[in-house]
Amino acid sequence: MIDVGIVGGSGYTGGELLRLLANHPQANVVVVTSRKLAGKPVTAVHSHLKNIYSLNFEALGAKEAAERCDIVFTAVPHGTAMDWVPELLDAGTRVIDLSSDYRLPVDVFEKTYATKHRAPREAVFGLPELHPEVAKAMLVGNPGCYPTGAILALAPLANAGLVERVIYDSKSGISGAGVEPTETSHYPNMSQNVIPYKLTAHRHVPEIKQELSRLSPEIKVNFTPHVVPSVRGILTTAHVLARPGAEEALQDKSRVASIYQEFYRNAPFVRMADGVPKLSSVRGSNFCDISFEPEKESDRLVVVSAIDNLVKGASGQAIQNMNLMAGLDQKTGLWFPGLAP
Amino acid sequence: MIDVGIVGGSGYTGGELLRLLANHPQANVVVVTSRKLAGKPVTAVHSHLKNIYSLNFEALGAKEAAERCDIVFTAVPHGTAMDWVPELLDAGTRVIDLSSDYRLPVDVFEKTYATKHRAPREAVFGLPELHPEVAKAMLVGNPGCYPTGAILALAPLANAGLVERVIYDSKSGISGAGVEPTETSHYPNMSQNVIPYKLTAHRHVPEIKQELSRLSPEIKVNFTPHVVPSVRGILTTAHVLARPGAEEALQDKSRVASIYQEFYRNAPFVRMADGVPKLSSVRGSNFCDISFEPEKESDRLVVVSAIDNLVKGASGQAIQNMNLMAGLDQKTGLWFPGLAP
Amino acid sequence: MIDVGIVGGSGYTGGELLRLLANHPQANVVVVTSRKLAGKPVTAVHSHLKNIYSLNFEALGAKEAAERCDIVFTAVPHGTAMDWVPELLDAGTRVIDLSSDYRLPVDVFEKTYATKHRAPREAVFGLPELHPEVAKAMLVGNPGCYPTGAILALAPLANAGLVERVIYDSKSGISGAGVEPTETSHYPNMSQNVIPYKLTAHRHVPEIKQELSRLSPEIKVNFTPHVVPSVRGILTTAHVLARPGAEEALQDKSRVASIYQEFYRNAPFVRMADGVPKLSSVRGSNFCDISFEPEKESDRLVVVSAIDNLVKGASGQAIQNMNLMAGLDQKTGLWFPGLAP
Amino acid sequence: MIDVGIVGGSGYTGGELLRLLANHPQANVVVVTSRKLAGKPVTAVHSHLKNIYSLNFEALGAKEAAERCDIVFTAVPHGTAMDWVPELLDAGTRVIDLSSDYRLPVDVFEKTYATKHRAPREAVFGLPELHPEVAKAMLVGNPGCYPTGAILALAPLANAGLVERVIYDSKSGISGAGVEPTETSHYPNMSQNVIPYKLTAHRHVPEIKQELSRLSPEIKVNFTPHVVPSVRGILTTAHVLARPGAEEALQDKSRVASIYQEFYRNAPFVRMADGVPKLSSVRGSNFCDISFEPEKESDRLVVVSAIDNLVKGASGQAIQNMNLMAGLDQKTGLWFPGLAP
Repeated sequence: MIDVGIVGGSGYTGGELLRLLANHPQANVVVVTSRKLAGKPVTAVHSHLKNIYSLNFEALGAKEAAERCDIVFTAVPHGTAMDWVPELLDAGTRVIDLSSDYRLPVDVFEKTYATKHRAPREAVFGLPELHPEVAKAMLVGNPGCYPTGAILALAPLANAGLVERVIYDSKSGISGAGVEPTETSHYPNMSQNVIPYKLTAHRHVPEIKQELSRLSPEIKVNFTPHVVPSVRGILTTAHVLARPGAEEALQDKSRVASIYQEFYRNAPFVRMADGVPKLSSVRGSNFCDISFEPEKESDRLVVVSAIDNLVKGASGQAIQNMNLMAGLDQKTGLWFPGLAP
Repeated sequence: MIDVGIVGGSGYTGGELLRLLANHPQANVVVVTSRKLAGKPVTAVHSHLKNIYSLNFEALGAKEAAERCDIVFTAVPHGTAMDWVPELLDAGTRVIDLSSDYRLPVDVFEKTYATKHRAPREAVFGLPELHPEVAKAMLVGNPGCYPTGAILALAPLANAGLVERVIYDSKSGISGAGVEPTETSHYPNMSQNVIPYKLTAHRHVPEIKQELSRLSPEIKVNFTPHVVPSVRGILTTAHVLARPGAEEALQDKSRVASIYQEFYRNAPFVRMADGVPKLSSVRGSNFCDISFEPEKESDRLVVVSAIDNLVKGASGQAIQNMNLMAGLDQKTGLWFPGLAP
Repeated sequence: MIDVGIVGGSGYTGGELLRLLANHPQANVVVVTSRKLAGKPVTAVHSHLKNIYSLNFEALGAKEAAERCDIVFTAVPHGTAMDWVPELLDAGTRVIDLSSDYRLPVDVFEKTYATKHRAPREAVFGLPELHPEVAKAMLVGNPGCYPTGAILALAPLANAGLVERVIYDSKSGISGAGVEPTETSHYPNMSQNVIPYKLTAHRHVPEIKQELSRLSPEIKVNFTPHVVPSVRGILTTAHVLARPGAEEALQDKSRVASIYQEFYRNAPFVRMADGVPKLSSVRGSNFCDISFEPEKESDRLVVVSAIDNLVKGASGQAIQNMNLMAGLDQKTGLWFPGLAP
Repeated sequence: MIDVGIVGGSGYTGGELLRLLANHPQANVVVVTSRKLAGKPVTAVHSHLKNIYSLNFEALGAKEAAERCDIVFTAVPHGTAMDWVPELLDAGTRVIDLSSDYRLPVDVFEKTYATKHRAPREAVFGLPELHPEVAKAMLVGNPGCYPTGAILALAPLANAGLVERVIYDSKSGISGAGVEPTETSHYPNMSQNVIPYKLTAHRHVPEIKQELSRLSPEIKVNFTPHVVPSVRGILTTAHVLARPGAEEALQDKSRVASIYQEFYRNAPFVRMADGVPKLSSVRGSNFCDISFEPEKESDRLVVVSAIDNLVKGASGQAIQNMNLMAGLDQKTGLWFPGLAP
């Protein structure tokens, strides 16, 4: 059994780690930290976990957490994770960081987040479909929610060298904005609305560019996110423009299908959807569903991907990484369907 | 033309007064106050009013407001209205108060709101269907949203002496809770949910009891409110239990229908619905739609009413009161249909 | 391993049986029937099950199904189940019927559903918290969704003889109405709305009366259902009126709490909620969360219960029954938390 | 007074014409046709219009309608309008057609809709901001909902010759799909979802291309529509790629702002939004709100527009056309704010 710790267990990704690990056959949550809620049962904020967990939040430091855990998930805001990670690693504990502190090279991180990085460490970008080397990592930087859906949608085509440019138009459920009420998450503002934000400069763009340009150095990437009246889920519409000369290739449906199939032949959580992917098909699950359609007499191909932002876009992917790090089948504890309808 | 002032124009009821008065043929908004937003255009918070209004918020006192206005709407929190009303009245300006400060006798108010009343004045309860004397009032206490739907649903039967007890189960859109984000209004909490609150002791109960017991002194009243995933609207389900001996009367559909028709013969905003009332039929409008159904072989009759909490439940009703106070047809500027679908 | 069959697998309760059984350690779905979809993969309509199930729908008769299954779930409309059940039972296969065909005495069934019962058989009412004898049953009539939430909310108090009358006001997600589009389920009609229906005569009332009057013969029951803008979940507000003499008992919170605790001491799926139950806390899970609040100086107590209509209100409860029938712990394969947020 | 007829009054656009014309000071609805509902009051399907209209649906032919009306709105499906229009025109009645029958050249129409055009007539494309000549038209082809939001978002930039290509990603409320329940509009399918459809070949594309290429012959246009969990509203995200050499111009915010201001100086219904446009700001109103943001160090500019698909995207725009045809101020009867929140 893996003894698991969760640093920052009161938010949505912390709650989701608890939900998903409740039935994991090889992992056992032994520590959940929260400075604010120390001493209170985890069910005080996660009432859905009642009778399932009898753990209390604790106000531990990194050293104590390291002593009691084999693997620690840091589910704290960016800029805070870097205060936990070095001590955890130094104590020999492996870390999966759900914040953005270890996803990017230091210079890119500092520019993107306007924050000095106080504790750079070597880390693997935790998208297991592209980075099998997570298995050996001491520190994994778990990807952002948007990058997960965006990169998985494009990686096979980028890898095949067929893409000149991709313009992502993503639609996310509002749970991605976290547990704290804001003007945007206020029901009368979010209901019956579609809210584009950070139209040209979202902080997740560098992650997407980093991963796609590894596969296709010259690729151009644009990204515009929106929040929609949904709690969970990200639907990404990728408007793909063919590299000159590749227009015909993108028109060939069976060829494109083969490219995806081949690329994801060892990726059980990526499913090629029959028809357009539905958020309800992936809700609560670790799947990423993908489909595509070429535009006739055009250089454009539209690729659509659907994930649950809190699962494949955060806590589920983190557990998938944990499985690989622990030498388990990546599906362990994660092989269940979405909640539809 | 009536020169109108709105004290507290940055919230939902203030915005709704502006929306509804935009096309009122006999009224003209000349003052909108907000201490916090003084100097900013009203469209800074009410972007739907852009190009319709060029007014700015002002940080006026009661005296200045009184000088410029024939009628003032006070759309501020309870406990604050009482700081405006006396000075306005003393300057000869008529006032329609949308807070709860002038709806109840002082002792009931103080007990209900746990607040000392600093400025009691004589006021008329502004439900014009029951209180035509608003026409002569200097000060009108505009009813709460729940009481409007609840009282209108029952008044004819209470007046006819047929009711032993009524148990109200009300379902409100979340706009009733105001413009400030809260844990309840946080989209992930409100979406796909139904939230009962103040299950047995909501502050609106005394208003309901006051009005129904005027019509039927012995009537027993219980009330439980819920918020539902809707922005606007209150659907009230009234479980009516017959007075001993009145069971048969409540079983008689055409008799009950006549009682409603007769009671509301001069009430253009009350409509007996064909079928169950829909929130979409009243959304954005000043109508209250009502229907009823007796339970066979029982002493229970179910009455259902639907209103828009921000219109008939607040700002529309306030304008209806203004019309009557000004000697206008009560329909003036309010005679338009709801926004369906 | 239990070989399981699902008769009628294309609807929501069929899909939910498949979802829930996917990870059941002691059961294996071997047959899923659908006349209309025979030959197609179950994932053709349940796209969330892709890669999880490779089964196809089959157009079997009862005899063939019986041969291949130890237990069969009939998830077909009322009036159709009775065409399957006798043959299945006669072949020695145990049956859990999710329709209403085997929940009521024949005369009550025929009156309620205006349908001649063509195949009455002895059956146990499958609410395991009240009917442990399901363990020995050959045929279980799985309760309706509304009755599950309504009965569990009241049973302890009814059993204690404290209740004169209960008026249920229930709010259900629209998935309870099934997979076929209707005028009510049309998004523009359901969104931002609350729709009361069958205000005084819903077909689930006799089930509720049957179970509560077993515990408290004189109890009076009224029931009004509503659909609300949610996919899953039933929130039941029970307005409980005390039996004369029991007013004080219902005012005593710790006494009422003890009554519930004692009654449900062996019922792991019933949780007394801290605060008002949330639909999100039970969504996707087999829990029923309950809380209560007495009204001061009144004979009324308000009890609130929350279930997922497709799980504890249908397919989860059916599997709980299956577990008991098979001699397993009732929690087997069902002990996981709801999907919040 | 203009005597107005509505051919096909039972759907959403017919209901919306009735709602909007209820308070039009210069128009009077005298005829509403529906073959299916002839003899029934219009409030039988439009319950929000109760007490506002006492009209009945009639089963008239074109000749009779023409005799009683000065202007007729045809709000029937494409392929049906062409059966009404010639006779109406021949009788001297002016027609505003809300279907797609008269928006495109015959050859383009026939290819796009796979329908033989049985009655081609000369018509003006009814986007008054671009086509002031509607004032003189006998027949106006009222634009599609998507094209209205898409064209208004881009016209100024296209006209200025700055655009190489535009990729539209549009998000529509489901009311655009009409009053008939479908699998897509089924609440459990639409709720908490975002559904892309006709990813590369929606029938509205030729309208968009037609209008933009009038302004900028070489412009490339791509379009992908989605439905989102909203009843009303279209939010269009236009990913604009600069014409080579125009990159700098699109980076210049004040220059772009001037281009819009100048282009729409006589267009009262187009508002440049402060911040991102909100669907709630235009809901129920005839406004189109627009904003834009250039991407730094890129050739991309993102333009966002918001309309109510049933008002500016259909019935409101039709009335705006009627006003112009009748020599009235285009704002007549349409100058009111949206319903927010």
